[in-house]
Amino acid sequence: MAERILCFGELLIRLAAPGRERLLQSPRLEVCIGGAEANVAVSLAGFGHEAAMLSVVADNALGHAAIGELRRHGVDTRLVDVAPGRMGLYFLETGAVQRPSSVLYDRADSAFARAGADRYDWSKALAGASWLHLSGVTPALGVAGAQAALAAATAARASGVRVCFDGNFRAKLWQQWGGDPGSILRELMAQTDLIFADHRDIAVALGGEIFAEPFHASLSQAATRAFDAFPHLQRLVCTQREQRDVDHHVLSAWSFHRDGTRGHAAPRELAGIVDRIGAGDAFAAGFLHGLCSGMDDARSLDFALAAACLKHSIPGDFNPVSVEEVEALLGGGGFHVRR
Amino acid sequence: MAERILCFGELLIRLAAPGRERLLQSPRLEVCIGGAEANVAVSLAGFGHEAAMLSVVADNALGHAAIGELRRHGVDTRLVDVAPGRMGLYFLETGAVQRPSSVLYDRADSAFARAGADRYDWSKALAGASWLHLSGVTPALGVAGAQAALAAATAARASGVRVCFDGNFRAKLWQQWGGDPGSILRELMAQTDLIFADHRDIAVALGGEIFAEPFHASLSQAATRAFDAFPHLQRLVCTQREQRDVDHHVLSAWSFHRDGTRGHAAPRELAGIVDRIGAGDAFAAGFLHGLCSGMDDARSLDFALAAACLKHSIPGDFNPVSVEEVEALLGGGGFHVRR
Amino acid sequence: MAERILCFGELLIRLAAPGRERLLQSPRLEVCIGGAEANVAVSLAGFGHEAAMLSVVADNALGHAAIGELRRHGVDTRLVDVAPGRMGLYFLETGAVQRPSSVLYDRADSAFARAGADRYDWSKALAGASWLHLSGVTPALGVAGAQAALAAATAARASGVRVCFDGNFRAKLWQQWGGDPGSILRELMAQTDLIFADHRDIAVALGGEIFAEPFHASLSQAATRAFDAFPHLQRLVCTQREQRDVDHHVLSAWSFHRDGTRGHAAPRELAGIVDRIGAGDAFAAGFLHGLCSGMDDARSLDFALAAACLKHSIPGDFNPVSVEEVEALLGGGGFHVRR
Amino acid sequence: MAERILCFGELLIRLAAPGRERLLQSPRLEVCIGGAEANVAVSLAGFGHEAAMLSVVADNALGHAAIGELRRHGVDTRLVDVAPGRMGLYFLETGAVQRPSSVLYDRADSAFARAGADRYDWSKALAGASWLHLSGVTPALGVAGAQAALAAATAARASGVRVCFDGNFRAKLWQQWGGDPGSILRELMAQTDLIFADHRDIAVALGGEIFAEPFHASLSQAATRAFDAFPHLQRLVCTQREQRDVDHHVLSAWSFHRDGTRGHAAPRELAGIVDRIGAGDAFAAGFLHGLCSGMDDARSLDFALAAACLKHSIPGDFNPVSVEEVEALLGGGGFHVRR
Amino acid sequence: MAERILCFGELLIRLAAPGRERLLQSPRLEVCIGGAEANVAVSLAGFGHEAAMLSVVADNALGHAAIGELRRHGVDTRLVDVAPGRMGLYFLETGAVQRPSSVLYDRADSAFARAGADRYDWSKALAGASWLHLSGVTPALGVAGAQAALAAATAARASGVRVCFDGNFRAKLWQQWGGDPGSILRELMAQTDLIFADHRDIAVALGGEIFAEPFHASLSQAATRAFDAFPHLQRLVCTQREQRDVDHHVLSAWSFHRDGTRGHAAPRELAGIVDRIGAGDAFAAGFLHGLCSGMDDARSLDFALAAACLKHSIPGDFNPVSVEEVEALLGGGGFHVRR
Amino acid sequence: MAERILCFGELLIRLAAPGRERLLQSPRLEVCIGGAEANVAVSLAGFGHEAAMLSVVADNALGHAAIGELRRHGVDTRLVDVAPGRMGLYFLETGAVQRPSSVLYDRADSAFARAGADRYDWSKALAGASWLHLSGVTPALGVAGAQAALAAATAARASGVRVCFDGNFRAKLWQQWGGDPGSILRELMAQTDLIFADHRDIAVALGGEIFAEPFHASLSQAATRAFDAFPHLQRLVCTQREQRDVDHHVLSAWSFHRDGTRGHAAPRELAGIVDRIGAGDAFAAGFLHGLCSGMDDARSLDFALAAACLKHSIPGDFNPVSVEEVEALLGGGGFHVRR
Repeated sequence: MAERILCFGELLIRLAAPGRERLLQSPRLEVCIGGAEANVAVSLAGFGHEAAMLSVVADNALGHAAIGELRRHGVDTRLVDVAPGRMGLYFLETGAVQRPSSVLYDRADSAFARAGADRYDWSKALAGASWLHLSGVTPALGVAGAQAALAAATAARASGVRVCFDGNFRAKLWQQWGGDPGSILRELMAQTDLIFADHRDIAVALGGEIFAEPFHASLSQAATRAFDAFPHLQRLVCTQREQRDVDHHVLSAWSFHRDGTRGHAAPRELAGIVDRIGAGDAFAAGFLHGLCSGMDDARSLDFALAAACLKHSIPGDFNPVSVEEVEALLGGGGFHVRR
Repeated sequence: MAERILCFGELLIRLAAPGRERLLQSPRLEVCIGGAEANVAVSLAGFGHEAAMLSVVADNALGHAAIGELRRHGVDTRLVDVAPGRMGLYFLETGAVQRPSSVLYDRADSAFARAGADRYDWSKALAGASWLHLSGVTPALGVAGAQAALAAATAARASGVRVCFDGNFRAKLWQQWGGDPGSILRELMAQTDLIFADHRDIAVALGGEIFAEPFHASLSQAATRAFDAFPHLQRLVCTQREQRDVDHHVLSAWSFHRDGTRGHAAPRELAGIVDRIGAGDAFAAGFLHGLCSGMDDARSLDFALAAACLKHSIPGDFNPVSVEEVEALLGGGGFHVRR
Repeated sequence: MAERILCFGELLIRLAAPGRERLLQSPRLEVCIGGAEANVAVSLAGFGHEAAMLSVVADNALGHAAIGELRRHGVDTRLVDVAPGRMGLYFLETGAVQRPSSVLYDRADSAFARAGADRYDWSKALAGASWLHLSGVTPALGVAGAQAALAAATAARASGVRVCFDGNFRAKLWQQWGGDPGSILRELMAQTDLIFADHRDIAVALGGEIFAEPFHASLSQAATRAFDAFPHLQRLVCTQREQRDVDHHVLSAWSFHRDGTRGHAAPRELAGIVDRIGAGDAFAAGFLHGLCSGMDDARSLDFALAAACLKHSIPGDFNPVSVEEVEALLGGGGFHVRR
Repeated sequence: MAERILCFGELLIRLAAPGRERLLQSPRLEVCIGGAEANVAVSLAGFGHEAAMLSVVADNALGHAAIGELRRHGVDTRLVDVAPGRMGLYFLETGAVQRPSSVLYDRADSAFARAGADRYDWSKALAGASWLHLSGVTPALGVAGAQAALAAATAARASGVRVCFDGNFRAKLWQQWGGDPGSILRELMAQTDLIFADHRDIAVALGGEIFAEPFHASLSQAATRAFDAFPHLQRLVCTQREQRDVDHHVLSAWSFHRDGTRGHAAPRELAGIVDRIGAGDAFAAGFLHGLCSGMDDARSLDFALAAACLKHSIPGDFNPVSVEEVEALLGGGGFHVRR
Repeated sequence: MAERILCFGELLIRLAAPGRERLLQSPRLEVCIGGAEANVAVSLAGFGHEAAMLSVVADNALGHAAIGELRRHGVDTRLVDVAPGRMGLYFLETGAVQRPSSVLYDRADSAFARAGADRYDWSKALAGASWLHLSGVTPALGVAGAQAALAAATAARASGVRVCFDGNFRAKLWQQWGGDPGSILRELMAQTDLIFADHRDIAVALGGEIFAEPFHASLSQAATRAFDAFPHLQRLVCTQREQRDVDHHVLSAWSFHRDGTRGHAAPRELAGIVDRIGAGDAFAAGFLHGLCSGMDDARSLDFALAAACLKHSIPGDFNPVSVEEVEALLGGGGFHVRR
Repeated sequence: MAERILCFGELLIRLAAPGRERLLQSPRLEVCIGGAEANVAVSLAGFGHEAAMLSVVADNALGHAAIGELRRHGVDTRLVDVAPGRMGLYFLETGAVQRPSSVLYDRADSAFARAGADRYDWSKALAGASWLHLSGVTPALGVAGAQAALAAATAARASGVRVCFDGNFRAKLWQQWGGDPGSILRELMAQTDLIFADHRDIAVALGGEIFAEPFHASLSQAATRAFDAFPHLQRLVCTQREQRDVDHHVLSAWSFHRDGTRGHAAPRELAGIVDRIGAGDAFAAGFLHGLCSGMDDARSLDFALAAACLKHSIPGDFNPVSVEEVEALLGGGGFHVRR
């Protein structure tokens, strides 16, 4: 049942303050590899799929380490190329109690951000894939990124590879180069079969405001507009996150299908959160796994939410959990020590 | 009021992933010494008793380190012998949020597991002791362990040393060598004065199913059957654990006396758990301390539950707390910083 | 709007067990600098004020490190002198669940404790300051400390520098040298414009018992007695802390003004506390910041409580947060990752 | 020029005391993956070859981590299978000054040691390979290992895959199961094209004593006897190590060719050694790289010695260096900081 | 005797692999602050001078941490401004034995590199200073840096502030923007009173080749040409470094005075080097200290060499040693433990 | 052959900067237990003797940890009492290259230093002992320490327990309380059978200067004077240490017997020293082990020097090595990895 999923996006080096320290409070940083699409690839590899990464990294020790780390997690990295330049970095300070976590990006002008559409051999990259996964971060990086993302989606559509897109809207990145997110995202979403996004992402792409109460009513409106606008789109899926404080959230999930059906995964209470970075990617990977494994949407949504919940217990951007572990959580086996 | 308690069982080396990392997520392990009976010995030494360990360890740096660590905590280790072979190990991955902790045992064929009943000089070992403490782990290790455990209990009974037994039923260990837990545990329990076990452990020993609602009704049935079956048995004691999530439990305790009286220690809410491994051993040691210190059963049960609660706040298998600290918790002095 | 605030008190070296370990459970200690008044100085510097420290440290690597650390946080340390002798130390074991944190002081006979009133050039130290901040720790250290604290407050009053005093009553320290806290604190408080203290501190100074229900009624009585007794006193301010367990508190705050008005900052729930040491100092600094920035008392109180809440999320004695971060919490912006 | 080299052997988990501490002096261990043949595979992958590992690991978190780590270093792990059982472990205490390093093996009865010749599909494993690399550790593990090693070498010879064998004689392992190293090693060596061994290894295989002065005269005798006894053998290669103290060695190397030519790589002085474990494997990999890259024997030997020297500067069993780094050392570029 | 020295240059964040690991071999980095001119400032502050830093840092947590760290070491940071942008970073892998250390720069387009000559108020910055210190790194950063460096030197010369210049020639940086190092360095050196450089730096500035045997003959030729070309130049000073291996160097020093006298500080053998980064800056600071303290050139050179030697024993870029410690080394007091 | 040796002295807590950092360069300290006499006790226990410690520690977590650590190493701590007060501390900064290590004592007014002669029950303490070991540190601590040390030696002499004294002269400690080391040490040495001291220690006790060339000629003169002055003294033993740099020493040893014979243990070169603190104590323990094991003086001296050499390779004050390890070094088995 395993399928090949191609994930296209940037690999980032994350440099995090230890524990709950402020950034550089003590002279150490803990390093891991991340990036929205890489996180998805690692999850999918952990779920037993053939996850391949398409990217460009700096041809230096950092870039090579990023490739090695993906490989360690079983991702096919043969499509990750090296180029002169720098790696995108981000510095993380994990919050606690009522102090929010904080991310300081230092990713401008990275080897990936410089790489345009013609840097990639799309037909080679897409060969054998059943899905292409990309996110709203890549087009936000600049003209080169936007063109590459569009080229990727278009090539996939042309090759009969389904396209999955995670909104990940980052206003700051778009502002830095003056890109028009609306038109670009609209064009991208037009190629997609599956979108992970909420009503705000859809509003950016389609214009206007989308708002209704409760939360899922907004989503419902967004889904309706999206299905109207994007002919290939079959599903709009997203999580709903309520934050009691920095370490205690309640997470649920919604899915909307072109056929008008709606799915809901009941709220899970997440207390004592260890690391929430990458939870959205874990969710997307979980849902993709469901689709690729022949689950129905309801079960896929449950699986995705459970996978996302597990992510909150693991330090780092990745969610290295197995299908068995997600299923055990879904099965309600309880929280006893596994011996 | 201090008494000599002989604890007979295996010393284990625990190798744990740091913090809430997955096992080998980063290339480091934190090491401590454990083992159900050793944990009890360390607690009892911390409570001021003369706790002696009877065991066999590998004659290498790991075995010597295990002895040293017990000695550091004030346990009398003169009865711990060394032998060729290996130490039993276990690898621990501490869970969080909704990801359960996980233990990977690598203890087969250890120097202790190989040591049979004739390896020990029971009269020397039991001299001066008022209690022998052992657990269901030792007979589960194989023929040698089962024979040694039975020999220990029988020798104690013969010498007028009271016998305390902690169920600790591990189905996997029994299956590995095809031992019949029922007959062996029945024989062992027949020598005991005090059992820490719930209805499932008693059902294993006595056969049949024991189930009633609520939880303590099951215990009550189990106690009745146990007092009928085991003529020396005076008390059956156990905790009741409700797990809200991996880090948040509610713990209470029950005791049943041959005279028909029942004790209950009211639930304590444990949020933000640091390390729950060894909590059962901390509980057993707390109750034994009560008995050895002349407390009545109700007070012993309260003391035991409070001791077990403190264990949840301390990394490692041991519960290095003092009587004063347990009493302070029982006294309700609050959670202010002690200056 | 930035003002110069002179903080007079001892710098301490804190040596803490890592994570939630017991003291010396593993062979490492984490070091930071603290001291009630230094903590206030660091907070005020972080809020943009000209915070100056007046102190004496040991003329050795520890004392120099203490100065360096204050300087790192932007405190003016030109008034910190060095002298032969030792640094005051304290060892910290951070508790968890139901095990309280514990502080072991090793501060007797420090270079600061030996320094008497004539060690300082008060007019030089107070030049340009709008506030002098000191606490009840200094007079508790011994005759020299008591005289120095009184000299400081008297000199400030004489120079038109307002005096802010944080009770920080430590019975043990007073007992060690047999000082009479009542008379000394009374004399000190008589010079103050602002006191951070609850009814127990006021009762120590003024004699008798103060008790009413609820908590703020006791405070109200204390304020009335204090305003009667201390002619310069304008405000009595304090926090109210309810401890659900070691890691989960509810914190609110109260202020009483000589004009009879009362302020209340609504309770904030603090779950998953990282480090509560220094929260009172963070609160005091927050309130002083409000006063020095032209806020009214209600707003100052809210700011102070929010600052104190943030402290609970940061390891160490200091509260290195910015005005913007406190305002963001007050603004209710939520707990999303700041990107 | 890159070739496919199949490395057959056991993956080990190494657990090392930090720095120069005695084992368990402090409660932490640093973990890496090792194993003589895996070390060779990692080096070869780092040199740009297609290095594949053939092995069996335990089907648990440790085994999966071992596979992941090889994959991280670019080794093809598709031929590494999982099986029930345990991983072989070794504990390392790194010495210093005049205290030798010490290895404590805990590898008995591992999943690999249990795997016999029929566990592997030799034709599939050898497909496309130009070399098979194995060592004297595998046959020393027991009957299963000995049969598997012989089967591997025989299958390779039959398939036209050249066989490279590293002596790695471990008397203790042979004694544990009573195997006859002479006959088994003789049979193995009879299949080899290339042997890394000194005169003691050859004497074990061929019987009798081999000794002459100086060191290389012994090697010369051994080579003569080996070329006589083993018809396919083309080269005997080894290092000569002189140990000034634990941290300071002098390393040179010798090669002997069937055509009677002899090579010598001049001594390199290694002061301030960081980690010498794996240096022999780094040497073997370096020589194999030379052969696979078309170097003559003299250049291969120089390359091998330089690679081995670099290993001494890197913590862990692996030697993750590039061809460029080895060439730079050979080029005598000096020890300036590379910027 | 303390003087005010203004150091103008970039603050860098250094991210180093722990111990002797390869970069990202384990997932941690150790952080410190560096930068050639900042290193000089920290040394001078440690020697009791009024060292002031003139720089621009990114207005984020990294930039603020850099300022804080300088302040901790007693450097006057009031002239360090913040600006939007990023901090210059460098990643360090410390070598060992025969593996050289390696620096990976990620400093392009930093807030400092973008800041041009008009970003600074030269008369304010130079007020009260007796020396301006700058290095060849700043003009190498780009047009803005080159103009700023020239403006600094010119303004200093005009204000009667002596100019000290450390060559630090980095060919790669110049190539990146195509700057002409010769003309720019010539113009800069024309303003200097003191240059730390060897014959290669002088050859870059003045053209042609300079080479003679032994090493100091080259220096002598370079000094002659430099004194001819640069009318204000009084002294050319540099170290001579012989590298036995990565951890073992022999360091001596030479000075040339316009009056034709030459100084030599005898070789010091540095075995077991801890961290050599910043040794050149420690040397420069030591010589400047000598000049500012009224030492003659011979004594200044000895002091500088001893200071540089001490740097090799301290992790990080800075050389936080006192005058007393340097003098003790010069005094030959031996290597006994100081108690 | 094992004998009971009573070691009388202070237990210290050592707080050391990690690696080769300056004290508090990073915010961590590594903790171990030390004290000259405790170091001897730990060594002797490691050599298989019944080593007992006589001391007083603070009745707090630090004091209890010190006891636990001795116990871990097999020292009999039943004679270590607790008392109110503080533990003696020392802060260690380990040097490198040409930067000497540095110790900052913070041991004044410790619970031990306050304990006078009447605090101890000498007959109970000495019962069964064949040797009393004490050092010059205890009398240097103040009047109480001096009286206790004299009482110990006198009681031992009276009980037929031989007295071993290690000079360990610390001028600073004597100066602090104005004690006269000459008269006190003379009185102490008069009770001794064995002294570890060089000519400077003897000169302090006996007055005048002792100096001759070479080093052992001074020792010879000192021995002659000591044998004349101290009727019970049989042996004067000491090491000779030549320091090439901080990490590289050459160590040899000398013994002088009342019968006029002289022993010499040939120099051992110690490069890459890890931790030299406690080497003198390791030496003393080694020699005592020789005497207690029936070795002749020459062999005892060799054993002692080899034990001291091993100490240089182990972090911490203790020398946890076995007789087998010392013998292996003496046997010249080389520096190969022990497998």
